[in-house]
Amino acid sequence: MNQIIQPSIAFATTDQQKPQLHLNLFLDGFGHHVASWRHPESQLNRSAFARYLEAAKIAEQGKFDAVFFADSLAMDPNVTHSGKVRGHEIEPLTLLSAIAAQTSHIGLIGTATTTYNEPYHIARKFASLDLISEGRAGWNLVTTDLAAEALNFNIEAHVPHQDRYERAEEFYDVVQGLWQSWEQDALLKDKAQGQFFNPEKLHPLNHRGKHFKVAGPLNVGPSAQGHPIIVQAGSSERGRELAARTADVIFTAQADFQSAQAFYADVKSRLSRYGRQAHELSILPGLYVVVAKTEQEALHKQKILDDLIEERVGLGLLGRMLGNFDLSTLDVDAPLPELELTQTGQQSRQALFTRLSHEQGLTVKQLYQRVAAGRGHFSLIGTADMIADQMEYWLKHKAADGFNIMPALLPSGAQDFIELVVPVLQQKKIFRTEYSATTLRAHYQSSHTV
Amino acid sequence: MNQIIQPSIAFATTDQQKPQLHLNLFLDGFGHHVASWRHPESQLNRSAFARYLEAAKIAEQGKFDAVFFADSLAMDPNVTHSGKVRGHEIEPLTLLSAIAAQTSHIGLIGTATTTYNEPYHIARKFASLDLISEGRAGWNLVTTDLAAEALNFNIEAHVPHQDRYERAEEFYDVVQGLWQSWEQDALLKDKAQGQFFNPEKLHPLNHRGKHFKVAGPLNVGPSAQGHPIIVQAGSSERGRELAARTADVIFTAQADFQSAQAFYADVKSRLSRYGRQAHELSILPGLYVVVAKTEQEALHKQKILDDLIEERVGLGLLGRMLGNFDLSTLDVDAPLPELELTQTGQQSRQALFTRLSHEQGLTVKQLYQRVAAGRGHFSLIGTADMIADQMEYWLKHKAADGFNIMPALLPSGAQDFIELVVPVLQQKKIFRTEYSATTLRAHYQSSHTV
Repeated sequence: MNQIIQPSIAFATTDQQKPQLHLNLFLDGFGHHVASWRHPESQLNRSAFARYLEAAKIAEQGKFDAVFFADSLAMDPNVTHSGKVRGHEIEPLTLLSAIAAQTSHIGLIGTATTTYNEPYHIARKFASLDLISEGRAGWNLVTTDLAAEALNFNIEAHVPHQDRYERAEEFYDVVQGLWQSWEQDALLKDKAQGQFFNPEKLHPLNHRGKHFKVAGPLNVGPSAQGHPIIVQAGSSERGRELAARTADVIFTAQADFQSAQAFYADVKSRLSRYGRQAHELSILPGLYVVVAKTEQEALHKQKILDDLIEERVGLGLLGRMLGNFDLSTLDVDAPLPELELTQTGQQSRQALFTRLSHEQGLTVKQLYQRVAAGRGHFSLIGTADMIADQMEYWLKHKAADGFNIMPALLPSGAQDFIELVVPVLQQKKIFRTEYSATTLRAHYQSSHTV
Repeated sequence: MNQIIQPSIAFATTDQQKPQLHLNLFLDGFGHHVASWRHPESQLNRSAFARYLEAAKIAEQGKFDAVFFADSLAMDPNVTHSGKVRGHEIEPLTLLSAIAAQTSHIGLIGTATTTYNEPYHIARKFASLDLISEGRAGWNLVTTDLAAEALNFNIEAHVPHQDRYERAEEFYDVVQGLWQSWEQDALLKDKAQGQFFNPEKLHPLNHRGKHFKVAGPLNVGPSAQGHPIIVQAGSSERGRELAARTADVIFTAQADFQSAQAFYADVKSRLSRYGRQAHELSILPGLYVVVAKTEQEALHKQKILDDLIEERVGLGLLGRMLGNFDLSTLDVDAPLPELELTQTGQQSRQALFTRLSHEQGLTVKQLYQRVAAGRGHFSLIGTADMIADQMEYWLKHKAADGFNIMPALLPSGAQDFIELVVPVLQQKKIFRTEYSATTLRAHYQSSHTV
C-alpha cells in the first residue's frame, strides 16, 4: 500500500477560506457495480467484516469524514434467485461498532428505518455506538422503500409514503428528545458524596404523540460529540423538508450537475424556516467512481464489469429501482416503455430513469448498465485529474458540499481513490490533509465557508 | 499483568473423562458489588468500552467460555437519584460487536428481551454479531422484569408474567426459524455461473402465529457455528420449561448448594421431554467472588465495599430485587416485614430473600449488604483453594456445570480470578488449559461427560 504524500500542515492551514469537500465512503458488498462480486479480484471467501474493516481503514487513511452503510430489513425479492449480494450480509449497528474498535478518526454512519423500529431502541443503539467510537456515530434516518420488509414485521401491506413520513417526523423528535435526556455535565462521578450523576441534569421525556408514547430518560449518556449526527437520504418534498429541519448531512442521488445544483439550492433555501444557516447542512450527492492512471484504463475497468452483468440481474435491478416492477419479459434492445407511477417511495428515481431513457434514447440494456454503475448516482469514470476537476466544479458552483464516494469495486476502488484522487483534491486545497478533530460532528463543521 | 503458568497440552489431554467446568465472566459496570464504583481503584473517567474490553481480554486470557452481558431498556427508577451505574451505560449488541473486533476466542453473550423487541431484529443482530465474531455469539433470551421499560415502548402498563412467556416462546420459534433460513451450504459463490447462493437452500419462514407474522428469510447468512447459542435466565416453572426446550446454557441465581442441586436435577429431568440429553444443556449459577491470597485479606476487601453502601442505595436495590417495593421508610436494623407477592417476574428472588431473612434472622441492613454482594447469587469470599474446592464440589455433585463469575470489582477482580483461581481449577483438571476450538458452541460442547 503506497503512502499518500502529505503536504505540510503549514501549507494546509493557509487555505481555511476555501470551501472544503466532505467525503464519505459508501460501503456496499464487493463494490457499487452490481456485478462487482463476479470480478476476478473479489475475494468471496473473505468475511464481510474483514472487507468492510479494510475499506474503513483505507477511508481513514485518506482522511475521509465517514463511512456510510445502507440497510434493508428483508431479502430483496428481486435478488433471491440472482447473484446480488446486498441485503443479506450484515447489520449496520453491529458492523460499525466492530469497525469503531479498530479505527480512531473515521465517522461511522449507519442506516436505520423509522418505519419498522422503535425510537427508544434506535436512540439507544446509536448513542451506544457514539460512546464506543468516542463521538463518531451518525444515524442515516430513512423510511422504508422495500415492501418486503413489512412482511417481516407483522404488517400485511406496505405503509404508504405519507404515513411513513408522519411517523418518521415524530420518531425523530422522540430520538432527539431521548438524546437530550442527559445534559453534557450530568455525570458527577463523585465517589465521596456517592453521586454518580446529578439527577437534576437527567430529564425524562414523557412524549405522548400520535405514533409513540415514550417516557425516557435514555439509559445511555452523552458522548464526546454530545449525540450522533443526523443524515438523511429522502429526495421527495416531504423528505427535503424533514432534512431541512433535522439533518446535518444529506445523501442524495443526482444524475447530473444541473439536477444537483437545483436540489442544492432548493434544500438550502428551506433552512431559514427553521432558523438554520446554509453551512449547518452538508449536501453530499452519491458519486460512482472508477479511477485509473489513463482514461482508457478506467473505461476498460468499467467494461469488464458491464460484461459481467447477466440480463436477469440487470432487469431485476432496474425493476427494483423503478418501483418493484417485473421487467423480466422486456426486450432489452428496445426503449423503456411507459410505467405507472407507484407508491413505493421510489418516485424520484422512477422519474430520473424514465427521463434518462427518453432524453438520451437509451435501450433497456443501456439503461440497466447505467443503473448497474451507481444506481442512478452521478458517475465519473476516468483519471484522477478529470474526477477531481468535476468534484471541484460541483463544490465551487454549489451543487455539492462533498460526495458519498461509491467505488465500483471494494475495497480496491477505495484504495485507488485515496491514492489517485485524494492527493489531487489536497493539492487543490479543497480537502483536508490531516484530521483536525476526532468527532464526526467536528469533521463536518471543519473548514466550512458560509 | 502476570502470566498464567500453563500445564502442557499433553498433561491436559489426559483428563478428558473428568467433568469440565464452563466459565462465563459476567460484565457489569465497575463490578458486581453495588458500591464498586466508589472503590478507590475504580477509574470513573475511563470509558465503559475500554473497561469492558479489558475485562473480556482478561477472560480470554483465562480461557473462559464467554463474557456475559445483562441489559435493561430503561433507567432503573430506584437508581435515578443514586449512584448506581447499571442501566445507563451501553447497549449489549453494539458493545459485544466492538469486543469481537479485538478478541479471537472468547464467547460473547448478550441479553435481549422478547417483551419489547421484534424477532426479525433480534435474529438479525445476533446473526450479525455471530458473523463478525466468526461463531462466538450467544443470545440470553429474557422476558422483561422492569415495569419502567413498558413506558418506553408505547405501553401503559407492564405485561403480565404469563403473557410475556407466551410471547417469548413464539418469539424464540420465529428467531430460530429465521436462523434456519439459510442452509449451511447455501452460499455457492460461483462467479462463473453468476450464482452467489443456491435459492433452493434459502427458505422463507412464513410464520403466522398469535403474536407474530414473519415471512423471512433472514437477510444474514449462517456463521462458523451455524447460528448463535441460546442462554436463558428464568427460574419460574414456565422459564425452566422454556429453557429445557430451547437453551444451550442456563444462567441462574442460586443462594446455596442445596437449592442449586435441586434446580439442576429439576431442569435436567425436563430435557427428555424434548428428546434432549443432559449434556446438551449447561447450568451455570452466578458466583459472586472476592479472592485474595489469605481469607482475612478477602474479607477485608469485602468490608471496604460494604462500608461504601449508602442506606438509600441499599434499600433501593433490595426493593428492586423484591419486586419494585419502596422500602425507604423501613427500619434497617429490624427484620424484613412480610411483603405482598407481585407480578413483576421477580417471584423467585422475592421468595429467596424472604427465606434468607427469616431463616438466618437477618436485619434489613444485613439483607441489603447480602444483596449488594451478588444480588442473591452464591457468594464465595476467600482464598483460591477454598473457592476452587467449592466450585469442584458443585460440579462433582451435580449442582452446576460451571459458573457465571461475578467479581466484586471489574476489571481487577477478573484479573485476580484468572491469576489465583483458574490455575487451581486447571491443576484439579476440571478446567481447560487451552481453547480447543474457536466457536462458543464448541466451547460449551467440549469435554462434557454425560
